[in-house]
Amino acid sequence: MSGVVVRNIERADASVIERLAACGVATVHEAQGRKGLLASYMRPIYRGARLAASAVTISAPPGDNWMLHVAIEQLKEGDILVLAPTSPCEDGYFGDLLATSAQARGCKGLIIDAGVRDVSDLTEMKFPVWSKAVFAQGTVKETLGSVNIPVVCAGALVNPGDVIVADDDGVCVVARHEAEAIAQKAEARVAAEEEKRKRLAAGELGLGIYKMRERLAEKGPKYV
Amino acid sequence: MSGVVVRNIERADASVIERLAACGVATVHEAQGRKGLLASYMRPIYRGARLAASAVTISAPPGDNWMLHVAIEQLKEGDILVLAPTSPCEDGYFGDLLATSAQARGCKGLIIDAGVRDVSDLTEMKFPVWSKAVFAQGTVKETLGSVNIPVVCAGALVNPGDVIVADDDGVCVVARHEAEAIAQKAEARVAAEEEKRKRLAAGELGLGIYKMRERLAEKGPKYV
Amino acid sequence: MSGVVVRNIERADASVIERLAACGVATVHEAQGRKGLLASYMRPIYRGARLAASAVTISAPPGDNWMLHVAIEQLKEGDILVLAPTSPCEDGYFGDLLATSAQARGCKGLIIDAGVRDVSDLTEMKFPVWSKAVFAQGTVKETLGSVNIPVVCAGALVNPGDVIVADDDGVCVVARHEAEAIAQKAEARVAAEEEKRKRLAAGELGLGIYKMRERLAEKGPKYV
Amino acid sequence: MSGVVVRNIERADASVIERLAACGVATVHEAQGRKGLLASYMRPIYRGARLAASAVTISAPPGDNWMLHVAIEQLKEGDILVLAPTSPCEDGYFGDLLATSAQARGCKGLIIDAGVRDVSDLTEMKFPVWSKAVFAQGTVKETLGSVNIPVVCAGALVNPGDVIVADDDGVCVVARHEAEAIAQKAEARVAAEEEKRKRLAAGELGLGIYKMRERLAEKGPKYV
Amino acid sequence: MSGVVVRNIERADASVIERLAACGVATVHEAQGRKGLLASYMRPIYRGARLAASAVTISAPPGDNWMLHVAIEQLKEGDILVLAPTSPCEDGYFGDLLATSAQARGCKGLIIDAGVRDVSDLTEMKFPVWSKAVFAQGTVKETLGSVNIPVVCAGALVNPGDVIVADDDGVCVVARHEAEAIAQKAEARVAAEEEKRKRLAAGELGLGIYKMRERLAEKGPKYV
Amino acid sequence: MSGVVVRNIERADASVIERLAACGVATVHEAQGRKGLLASYMRPIYRGARLAASAVTISAPPGDNWMLHVAIEQLKEGDILVLAPTSPCEDGYFGDLLATSAQARGCKGLIIDAGVRDVSDLTEMKFPVWSKAVFAQGTVKETLGSVNIPVVCAGALVNPGDVIVADDDGVCVVARHEAEAIAQKAEARVAAEEEKRKRLAAGELGLGIYKMRERLAEKGPKYV
Repeated sequence: MSGVVVRNIERADASVIERLAACGVATVHEAQGRKGLLASYMRPIYRGARLAASAVTISAPPGDNWMLHVAIEQLKEGDILVLAPTSPCEDGYFGDLLATSAQARGCKGLIIDAGVRDVSDLTEMKFPVWSKAVFAQGTVKETLGSVNIPVVCAGALVNPGDVIVADDDGVCVVARHEAEAIAQKAEARVAAEEEKRKRLAAGELGLGIYKMRERLAEKGPKYV
Repeated sequence: MSGVVVRNIERADASVIERLAACGVATVHEAQGRKGLLASYMRPIYRGARLAASAVTISAPPGDNWMLHVAIEQLKEGDILVLAPTSPCEDGYFGDLLATSAQARGCKGLIIDAGVRDVSDLTEMKFPVWSKAVFAQGTVKETLGSVNIPVVCAGALVNPGDVIVADDDGVCVVARHEAEAIAQKAEARVAAEEEKRKRLAAGELGLGIYKMRERLAEKGPKYV
Repeated sequence: MSGVVVRNIERADASVIERLAACGVATVHEAQGRKGLLASYMRPIYRGARLAASAVTISAPPGDNWMLHVAIEQLKEGDILVLAPTSPCEDGYFGDLLATSAQARGCKGLIIDAGVRDVSDLTEMKFPVWSKAVFAQGTVKETLGSVNIPVVCAGALVNPGDVIVADDDGVCVVARHEAEAIAQKAEARVAAEEEKRKRLAAGELGLGIYKMRERLAEKGPKYV
Repeated sequence: MSGVVVRNIERADASVIERLAACGVATVHEAQGRKGLLASYMRPIYRGARLAASAVTISAPPGDNWMLHVAIEQLKEGDILVLAPTSPCEDGYFGDLLATSAQARGCKGLIIDAGVRDVSDLTEMKFPVWSKAVFAQGTVKETLGSVNIPVVCAGALVNPGDVIVADDDGVCVVARHEAEAIAQKAEARVAAEEEKRKRLAAGELGLGIYKMRERLAEKGPKYV
Repeated sequence: MSGVVVRNIERADASVIERLAACGVATVHEAQGRKGLLASYMRPIYRGARLAASAVTISAPPGDNWMLHVAIEQLKEGDILVLAPTSPCEDGYFGDLLATSAQARGCKGLIIDAGVRDVSDLTEMKFPVWSKAVFAQGTVKETLGSVNIPVVCAGALVNPGDVIVADDDGVCVVARHEAEAIAQKAEARVAAEEEKRKRLAAGELGLGIYKMRERLAEKGPKYV
Repeated sequence: MSGVVVRNIERADASVIERLAACGVATVHEAQGRKGLLASYMRPIYRGARLAASAVTISAPPGDNWMLHVAIEQLKEGDILVLAPTSPCEDGYFGDLLATSAQARGCKGLIIDAGVRDVSDLTEMKFPVWSKAVFAQGTVKETLGSVNIPVVCAGALVNPGDVIVADDDGVCVVARHEAEAIAQKAEARVAAEEEKRKRLAAGELGLGIYKMRERLAEKGPKYV
């Protein structure tokens, strides 16, 4: 499957993507039936970034970042790069020069199941990255990978054009064709939570609000 | 041992708890003979929190946060929730709604040998959490666990009502009935360190201050 | 090899060290042919520190920080402590008192393939530490180690007097006798990158700037 | 996506599956362009098993093995169970009773990105398992998962009916519709290697056999 | 808590211990309500050992095996050594000489949340060890620990005199005063499983035997 | 440092190497002052191999095994290959064809801080490998590394021509110029242990044999 670059991928509607960003990772994950999370080791290089964007996917050999250059040519405004190495690797595939280039072409960030470097610069540039490691280790440009093919990134299947939602809680992927439906469900959750938050803040118990007492009584925990 | 909720636990005296908080994790750990630390992977979701509180313990199945709702009902002002899963798990048992509820009932924070989510919200709410992971993964409410039984959390035995001390260095547990004695020893250490800090800042060597030279000479390192 | 303290080590020229600090970890690592990085798990206790300094090395038994006291006596202005345990350990060998002492003698920081504690204090003191863990676990003073012998720290060989470069990307070691040559190469890279950064920021592609298209064509990725 | 059981899945041809088994994991992985491997932590509970089989996939909540019972009803002679938990888990979902049941229905083994127990019994029964852990931890039967939907298992996408190849080197998945083509390529590799093995055994160098000297000379390693 | 050696501990009845050994780890763990397992990283140095024995516990500093010598003096026929380091460590505290000594005094094996060495010799001697690592790293004899105090070993609380059950599935601890009751429950499980095993082997489904169909229908998985 | 192949390295005397093999890893490690061990994750692919050999070292990029072919040309009878990747990697650099070639040229085995494949074949060939992983993942031949330069392998510095000792306990490196002296010390340890083993087997305590009681009494453990 190596050596394929898919040029024209479909993306979700920009307004739908924005709605998903507004809901955040935890809510979107719940709204789609608790699926789509990338592994918990995918951490942001700085706190406070929160976005949704269309995935331009990269399958790259360990320690070889050639395909990042190829992928950047395929970026459209509002995309995010998603790199999965073909075997476990934590090399620093990406740094400030690539970020400058990607940002110049409208890229919103990077999800990489490997390492990233120049994190001080990236923080200053406000170019968010969620990665497995921060590691300065340099890479070569010798072996082809692919761009815009389906990849498994940090345990989750990502198809090109899928919507990536990312914030301080981590990263979640939403299938492109489900994006609108999930946005609607996620917004419904946000609305429903508002009321509950107020009641909980006022001291009501979840046991009451969620009507758990009866079912709990059936299971019969022993209060002593 | 599943399915037990202990309602009335004894807590240490509030003033003793405050004195332990003032001393901090490293000092308290030393004062009690270098015991009671939770594993180093228990990290705070934000820097700068520092507290001591009475443990309300939770033993919960992997991926099931039902008992958190049950435990919140048992909270008293000045408590902290301590959750140990019955097998290794990093799901996000706890988020902003549960934090709102816990905070409304006087809870000072959460120690969880698993995951937490909504960390941006929790940071804003100043609800500190020390956890093994940040992970949005949702949980179910199907299987009973227990509240206020002894648990092993991140490698340390915690009995309900024990004092949890937590800061940027991690988490330490002090047995309830030893709390007063340990507070005293910890304060003595703080006092003793002040003098040493001044001498060290002035350039004196620990080798001299702690009178290590003689014992060192016996062991005989070769200076070359 | 235990029980040796080497007193007079050679250091690189202070001006060379400053030039390496200015270039940063990723650039220095590249300039010396992609070698010298410590493992990616060596993370700074706070963000924003950036330095270069001469290594005073310590080989210490697990859970025994006696040699830190011995090493501090050997410090000169502009040095950095580099501690490698003789077997894997994450105990907190180092805290605010040792930092006070080291800082009073001109020490710029600590690299430790183990744990550190009192990180709030160290942050306030602006004493930077790159470590494997933050852990309050106390240590003893019973067994000799050595000071200023070659050590393998987090996977990299460090000789006493080598130059340590450290920033938010991690830690890199430069052999003392290569320091000047590497500084020159690193500065050349910084200069060369400036031009590229401008072109990339203007939207030019790396594929063009680095003339990759021809070689890429040979390998023949299939554009679809 | 929870709560779906797909009853009639297509399988690859039995003879093709046997041909893949004969080639083994490493060869099949190479034959399909170095893809399809499950993570290296998936280890066999005993040495010497070697098989290929059709995947009956299971997506199961952490610590809940209910769906294994549901999946066993869907087994056909020559199948293998492939279980991926919905979040990281190492509980012992599977032991000798489930193995007895699965074996009775023609199941050839289990691939599980979690734990397994009763490994002495399974070894005696010659029921091979490749797992992330050996762990006796028991599970509940409370929450639905799905059977025969696409899953990501140990980093690899597995569709129901795909061919699983497994031996002492680990586990590899081959897409059902590619199975025949890959079997052919794999057999060609086996044949080609036979000749090379003889020449290498006779002392010829790979540098010569694979004609690497010229290309190596271009890159120019310095012989000293 | 350091520096205490408890000489006379109570043990469970030898016949009860034998009954627990016969049931094995997985069954005993289930019989006591799914508690008491040590972490899954505790692996036997060779396959096929299966035992139950009374715990003589050791709390030892990292890299210091002095207390093992002290503990061996406290051994009685039918005991097992259980060592928990006071902070994470994988040094080789134990090898063939200590095993010779322990075996001579009736010791049945070792559970160690650290490393072991001379594993070829121990295998030949039929002295079973469950450990976190196999590692030759030597240790010192400088700092006191304790013998026969409660310890947390690989995540489980072990009191001196508790019954350790260990086999290829790992290690489980049974509280001394519960040993008889658990033995009874475990034997009941073994008996009950025999019947089920036969029915499953004959091709009956667990869905039927365990009467899961009705409850499953309520939850409503969609068969497609 | 990439792209260097050192052709003529010095080796230790064959008879010295044999004497080290006879002593084994744990004894040699102790004899040289408890240094030289590779990390505990370096495990043999089969039990029972035990050897000592001269290191032919390889520094190789992640996922690129070209230098193995180059190194094999440099092998002499009685050598062992030692491969350290330039960044963490677990790809399967080495399989049965390379083993056939290496074995034909007198190579005794492989130490690799990465992955190995075809482990069933290697076991049958009696070609021992100590590795970080068993993983079938294929590698490329694109980027130069070096042969017979100093490498850090699994945390230990290995110079070409150093003696590697390996058995079921792991791997230890002995500096070439110290090999004879260490062999002598190791043999002395073996001789001294024989007497102790007999006394311990007869039931004498280490506390007595090693005269620990007095020093123990000074430290004052409390017997209760």
